[in-house]
Amino acid sequence: MALKVGVIGTGMIGQDHIRRLTQVLSGVEVAGVTDIDLARAKSAAPAGATVYETPEALITAPEVQAVVICSWGPAHEAQLLACIAAGKPVFCEKPMVTSEAAALKVIEAEVAFGRRLVQVGFMRRFDADYRRLKRVIDGGTLGAPLMYYSKHRNASVPEGLYTSEMPLNDTLVHDADISRWLLSDEVSAVEVRVPRRSTRGRDLRDPVMVMLHMASEAIVDVEISVNIGYGYDIRGEVSCENGIAALPNRPAAVVTDANGIRQAIPEDWRERFIEAYDQEFREWIVAAGAGTATGPSAWDGYAATLVADAALRAVDSGAREPVTMIDKPALYN
Amino acid sequence: MALKVGVIGTGMIGQDHIRRLTQVLSGVEVAGVTDIDLARAKSAAPAGATVYETPEALITAPEVQAVVICSWGPAHEAQLLACIAAGKPVFCEKPMVTSEAAALKVIEAEVAFGRRLVQVGFMRRFDADYRRLKRVIDGGTLGAPLMYYSKHRNASVPEGLYTSEMPLNDTLVHDADISRWLLSDEVSAVEVRVPRRSTRGRDLRDPVMVMLHMASEAIVDVEISVNIGYGYDIRGEVSCENGIAALPNRPAAVVTDANGIRQAIPEDWRERFIEAYDQEFREWIVAAGAGTATGPSAWDGYAATLVADAALRAVDSGAREPVTMIDKPALYN
Amino acid sequence: MALKVGVIGTGMIGQDHIRRLTQVLSGVEVAGVTDIDLARAKSAAPAGATVYETPEALITAPEVQAVVICSWGPAHEAQLLACIAAGKPVFCEKPMVTSEAAALKVIEAEVAFGRRLVQVGFMRRFDADYRRLKRVIDGGTLGAPLMYYSKHRNASVPEGLYTSEMPLNDTLVHDADISRWLLSDEVSAVEVRVPRRSTRGRDLRDPVMVMLHMASEAIVDVEISVNIGYGYDIRGEVSCENGIAALPNRPAAVVTDANGIRQAIPEDWRERFIEAYDQEFREWIVAAGAGTATGPSAWDGYAATLVADAALRAVDSGAREPVTMIDKPALYN
Amino acid sequence: MALKVGVIGTGMIGQDHIRRLTQVLSGVEVAGVTDIDLARAKSAAPAGATVYETPEALITAPEVQAVVICSWGPAHEAQLLACIAAGKPVFCEKPMVTSEAAALKVIEAEVAFGRRLVQVGFMRRFDADYRRLKRVIDGGTLGAPLMYYSKHRNASVPEGLYTSEMPLNDTLVHDADISRWLLSDEVSAVEVRVPRRSTRGRDLRDPVMVMLHMASEAIVDVEISVNIGYGYDIRGEVSCENGIAALPNRPAAVVTDANGIRQAIPEDWRERFIEAYDQEFREWIVAAGAGTATGPSAWDGYAATLVADAALRAVDSGAREPVTMIDKPALYN
Repeated sequence: MALKVGVIGTGMIGQDHIRRLTQVLSGVEVAGVTDIDLARAKSAAPAGATVYETPEALITAPEVQAVVICSWGPAHEAQLLACIAAGKPVFCEKPMVTSEAAALKVIEAEVAFGRRLVQVGFMRRFDADYRRLKRVIDGGTLGAPLMYYSKHRNASVPEGLYTSEMPLNDTLVHDADISRWLLSDEVSAVEVRVPRRSTRGRDLRDPVMVMLHMASEAIVDVEISVNIGYGYDIRGEVSCENGIAALPNRPAAVVTDANGIRQAIPEDWRERFIEAYDQEFREWIVAAGAGTATGPSAWDGYAATLVADAALRAVDSGAREPVTMIDKPALYN
Repeated sequence: MALKVGVIGTGMIGQDHIRRLTQVLSGVEVAGVTDIDLARAKSAAPAGATVYETPEALITAPEVQAVVICSWGPAHEAQLLACIAAGKPVFCEKPMVTSEAAALKVIEAEVAFGRRLVQVGFMRRFDADYRRLKRVIDGGTLGAPLMYYSKHRNASVPEGLYTSEMPLNDTLVHDADISRWLLSDEVSAVEVRVPRRSTRGRDLRDPVMVMLHMASEAIVDVEISVNIGYGYDIRGEVSCENGIAALPNRPAAVVTDANGIRQAIPEDWRERFIEAYDQEFREWIVAAGAGTATGPSAWDGYAATLVADAALRAVDSGAREPVTMIDKPALYN
Repeated sequence: MALKVGVIGTGMIGQDHIRRLTQVLSGVEVAGVTDIDLARAKSAAPAGATVYETPEALITAPEVQAVVICSWGPAHEAQLLACIAAGKPVFCEKPMVTSEAAALKVIEAEVAFGRRLVQVGFMRRFDADYRRLKRVIDGGTLGAPLMYYSKHRNASVPEGLYTSEMPLNDTLVHDADISRWLLSDEVSAVEVRVPRRSTRGRDLRDPVMVMLHMASEAIVDVEISVNIGYGYDIRGEVSCENGIAALPNRPAAVVTDANGIRQAIPEDWRERFIEAYDQEFREWIVAAGAGTATGPSAWDGYAATLVADAALRAVDSGAREPVTMIDKPALYN
Repeated sequence: MALKVGVIGTGMIGQDHIRRLTQVLSGVEVAGVTDIDLARAKSAAPAGATVYETPEALITAPEVQAVVICSWGPAHEAQLLACIAAGKPVFCEKPMVTSEAAALKVIEAEVAFGRRLVQVGFMRRFDADYRRLKRVIDGGTLGAPLMYYSKHRNASVPEGLYTSEMPLNDTLVHDADISRWLLSDEVSAVEVRVPRRSTRGRDLRDPVMVMLHMASEAIVDVEISVNIGYGYDIRGEVSCENGIAALPNRPAAVVTDANGIRQAIPEDWRERFIEAYDQEFREWIVAAGAGTATGPSAWDGYAATLVADAALRAVDSGAREPVTMIDKPALYN
C-alpha cells in the first residue's frame, strides 16, 4: 500500500521532490500539494493529486498520511507544529526553522507527542561516500577523530541573491551537520576567520574559514568557497589518532590526454547528491509508513540553527562564540 | 498503473530480482511466479502473486503483462519463443540461449513479430561507470578506439562446480558484450592464450587471455582470472588514437594507515553491480510498459553465443577462430 | 676544480652531509672538519681532510673555501658571523639562530658585507614535488592563493627528548618557510589551536593546529601531528581563486590485494626528502663556488625565528600574535 | 680518484652523457672523446679531454680507464670486442649489437676474459618506480607473476625517419628487457598482432600488440603506440596469483580546475627517465672503477637482439616465433 504524501511548496526543490516521489521511488504517491502561489501548485500537481488552498488544509486532510515541507524557511515552524499536532510524519527541507526559539518549540511539541515525527533534509547523511567514511571512523581501528577537514566549494551562487551572511547561515549547516554525525559529537563553540577575498567578480566575503570546536575537543576545520568556478567540489578528511580517512574522488572516467590523467568533477549539487536525495526519501518513506522518522531529527535541526547563529556572531566578534544546547531529550538518543 | 510481471525461476537470481521488483523499484508488481520446484516458487512468491504450475501458464496468463526469465539456460529458448508468441515483453537472464541455432530461432520469431520484445541481462551496460566511459569514447575527442583492455577478476569460484570451460562460455560473455557496446563494433574472430597457471589450490585453467578481433580491426584484450582471492576487480581501459579512457576505482573511503594510502575494492559482483541491476530493471520496466524492450537485445544474445562458441574452439585449436554472423535484421539497428 | 668545504659539527646530520658531499655529489670535496668532540670529528673526517680544533680555525683556514654548519643551534650565531667576517659562503642547518636579536645581527653583517653568503637548510624548497606545485601557482592560471593547507605528520618522535614546545619552535619552521615560499608572501600573525589530544602513549600536546595569517590575508592552515604511527605524511594543498593545486602521492608501486588498491607512504623524513637534500647541496655548491648563496637566505631564517616565537606566544595566549619584521634589505629581493 | 672515461660517438645521446659525466655525476671525468666526425668530437670535448682520431686509439689509450659507446649500432661489435681485448669496462648504448652472431661473439670474448666488462644501456632497470615494482614482486607475497602488461606510448616519432619495423626492433627492446628483469624470466617465443591503425597522419603500422611468451609460461602483453600525441606514457602492471602490482602515476602536482582533478604526464623519455639515466651511470662508475660492470649485461643485449629478430619474423608470419638461446654462461648468473 503506497504512502500518501502531501507536498507543501512547489518551487524548484518542491518540484524536484514531486518528480522523485512520482517517478523514481516506489511505495509512495503524491496525494496532495499546496503552495503560496496556487497556480504554481496546480501546474506542479501530479495526476490524481488534490490541490489544497492552505498548508493547514493539506496537513489535516485525512487522505494525507505524511507531509513534505518545501516552503520557505520562516513558514516551517507553524507547519511543523501543525504536523506534530496532527500526529503525521513530516519531512522538512533545510533550514528546519530560522530561530533557536522556534527550534525549541518544535522539539518541545515532538517530545510531548512522544515519538519522532520530524525528519530534516540533511541529505549528505544518505550519501554512500559519507556513509563509508563514517563506517571507517566508527570501526575504530583508526582511533579517535581529532580533526576533520570539510571543504565546501561551489562553482557559483546566484548574483545579487546570495549575500555574505549565507555561507554562514545557509551553506555551513551542511558541514556542521555532517561533522556532528561523522564524529558522533556536538559543537560547543564556533570561530570564523576571513582569508584573502576572491576577486571572481562578486562583492562577497568569500572564502570563509570556520572552526567548529566539538565537545570532545576535536576541531572541525571548514572551508566555504562559493564561487570557485570550476565545479562543485566537496571534500572531507578525518585525522584520527592512528590514521586518516577521506572521501574519495567521484567516480568519473579516467581520461588521459593533453590535459593529463584526469577525472571530471561534478558540476553542481544536483549531480553530486542526486542518489543521496533519492536514498533520503527511500528511507523516509519506510519510516513515515511506520508512523515515525529516521536520520536527521529536530534535534539536528536545532543544532544547525545554533551553529549558524554562533557563526554569524563569530564573524562579527572575531572571538570564540559558545554554542549552548539544552539537555538532550531521551527521544533523540 | 504498475506493470504486472511474471517471474519464471525462483532460484538465487530469481529471488534477488523478486526482491528488487517488490522492494526497490516503483511502477511494477510481481503478479505471478513459477519454478520447476513449485514449493520453492510458493515460498518465493510475494503477497498477492499467483503461483503458476508451468512457464507456459504464466506466460499466457492475461494478468501477466511482461515476463522475467531466471530459469536455467537450456529452458530459455522455449520460454522466449512462448513470450514472443504471446506478444509479451520479456527480460531474460544470461545466457539468452545455449546454441547458435536457438539464438537464430529467437531472432527469427522476434523479427517476424516486428517489434523488440526481448531484453537480455547484460547489466554492465547499465552501470554508471561504464556509461561514463562510453560517453567519453562516443564523444569522439579521443579518436577511434584501437585497443580495449578488459580485466575480469573474480575473488573465487565455487569449488567443483566451476570448470575450465566456464571462463570462456560463462564469464567471457560479459567482456564480449561490453566490448561490442563500448566500441559500437562486432567480434569477427577470437583467439585464446593460456598463461602460466595460478596455483591457488584448484585444478582450473586460470587465468586465460582472450583476444577479440573486432570488425573495425580493433583488438580487445581480455584477462579472465577467476580465483584471485583479494576481491572482485573489474577494469576496463580503451586506447584511442589521441588518448586513453578507463574505468575509475570504485568510490571507497581513502584510508591512510600502516597499509598505505588505500581504497577497498568490492568483494563480489553483487557489491560491484547492485546499482546496475537496479537501473537495468528501471529501464526495462519503462520499455516493457510501452510493450517493447531496451538495451541488450536478442541480437546481442546471439553475438554472445557465437563468441563463447568461438572461444571454446580457439582454446583447443590455438588458432584464430572466426565469428560469422547473419546479416543484421533492421529491427536491431 | 672541486670546491673545498669545511664541515662544523659531525653528529648525525653532519655525518650524513659528509657522506653526501663525498659520495653523492660532484664538484666538491671535504677539506676540513671540526666538532666539539674532536674524537668524533676525527672518526667522521674523510681521507685527506684536516681536523681543526675549533670552528674559528676551520673558518679562517685558507684551504677552506666554504663552510657547512651542522653544530647545535645556539652555536650558529658566532659561526655565521665568523664566516661572514671571512667572506666565505656558508650553508647553515636549521635553526639558523635561536633568537630574533641573533638573526638581526646575521642580517646586518651580511648586508654590510654586500653579497649573500648565508644559505639556510630549508630543504623542502628543493623537493621536486614542491617545485612543481610552486610552478603551478606562479603560473597564475589558478588565480591568487587564498588558503594553503600544510599537513605535517610524523610517525613518531624520540620519547623524552621531544617536548610540547617542539612542534612550534622546531617542526613548524618547515611549514612556515614553505608557505612563505609557495605563496611569495610573509607571515603577519600567528594563531594556535589545540585539538583533542592523541592518546598514543605520550604526554605531548599533539596534534596542534596553527594558522599563519599572511600579509596578503591568505591563511595558512597547518596541522602538526608528531606521533601518527603509520608513516611520514607530508601534504600540501593550495586553494586559489579558480582552482586547487596539491602535492601528489609519493610514487610507490600501486598494489592491489586484500588491503585494497594502495600505495605505501614514506617511513620517515630521510626517505621522503633524500633527493631534496641532494639537490639542495647541488645548488649550493654551484652558488658557493661563485662566492655566494642561493635559495633560503638569512632573511628566511629570520622569518622562521619570528614565526616560531609568535607561535609559542600564541599557544599560551590563545590570541592572534603579530609577527613584525624590519624592512626587507634590498640584498634579499 | 676520478674514473677517466673515453666517449665514442658525440651525437645527441653522446653529448647528453658527456654533460651527465661532467656536470651531474661525481667520481668521473671525461678524459677522451672521438667521433666519426672529428669536428663534432672537438666541439663536444670538455676542457682537458683528448680528441682521439679513432675508436681504437681511444680504447687503447693508457689514460682511458673505461669506455662509453654512443656510436651507431653497426659499429658496436668491433668497439666492444676492442674494449674486451683491452680489458676495459665499457658502457654500451642500445642496441648492444645488430645481429645474433655479433652478440654471441661479444659473449664469447667476455666469457673468455673471465669477468664482466660490458654494461648495456637499458636504463629502465635503474628507474626508482620500476625498482619498487620489482621489490614488490620479488617480495613474494603476491605469488608468482602470471601476466605482465607493458604499455609503451610515445607522443610522436620523427617523420620519415621512423619506419614500421622500428616499434619491433628498436622500441620493443625496452619492454622485453624490463619484462625479463621484472619477472626474472626469459622469453621463449614471440607473437605480434596488428590492431586497427591510428590515423594520426603517418604511414606507420601503429599501434602493435606483442605477446612475449616467457619460459615460465607467463605472458607479457605489450602495447606499442608511437604517435599518441598527448605525451610519453609508460605503464606496467603485473598480475600475480594473489594480487596486482603496477607502476604509479608520475609525481605531478594534482590540479583541480575546469579540466577536472588531474596530473600532468611527461612530455618525452628525457623527462620521464632523466633520473634513471643518472642512476645508471652512477652505478656504472662504481662498477667500472672496480674493473667490471653491473646491471644489464651482454647476455641481456643478446636476449634483446633475439626478441627483436623474433618479433620481426612474427609480424610477417602471424605465427608464434620461438626464441632459442644458447646455454647461459655462468658469468651471467
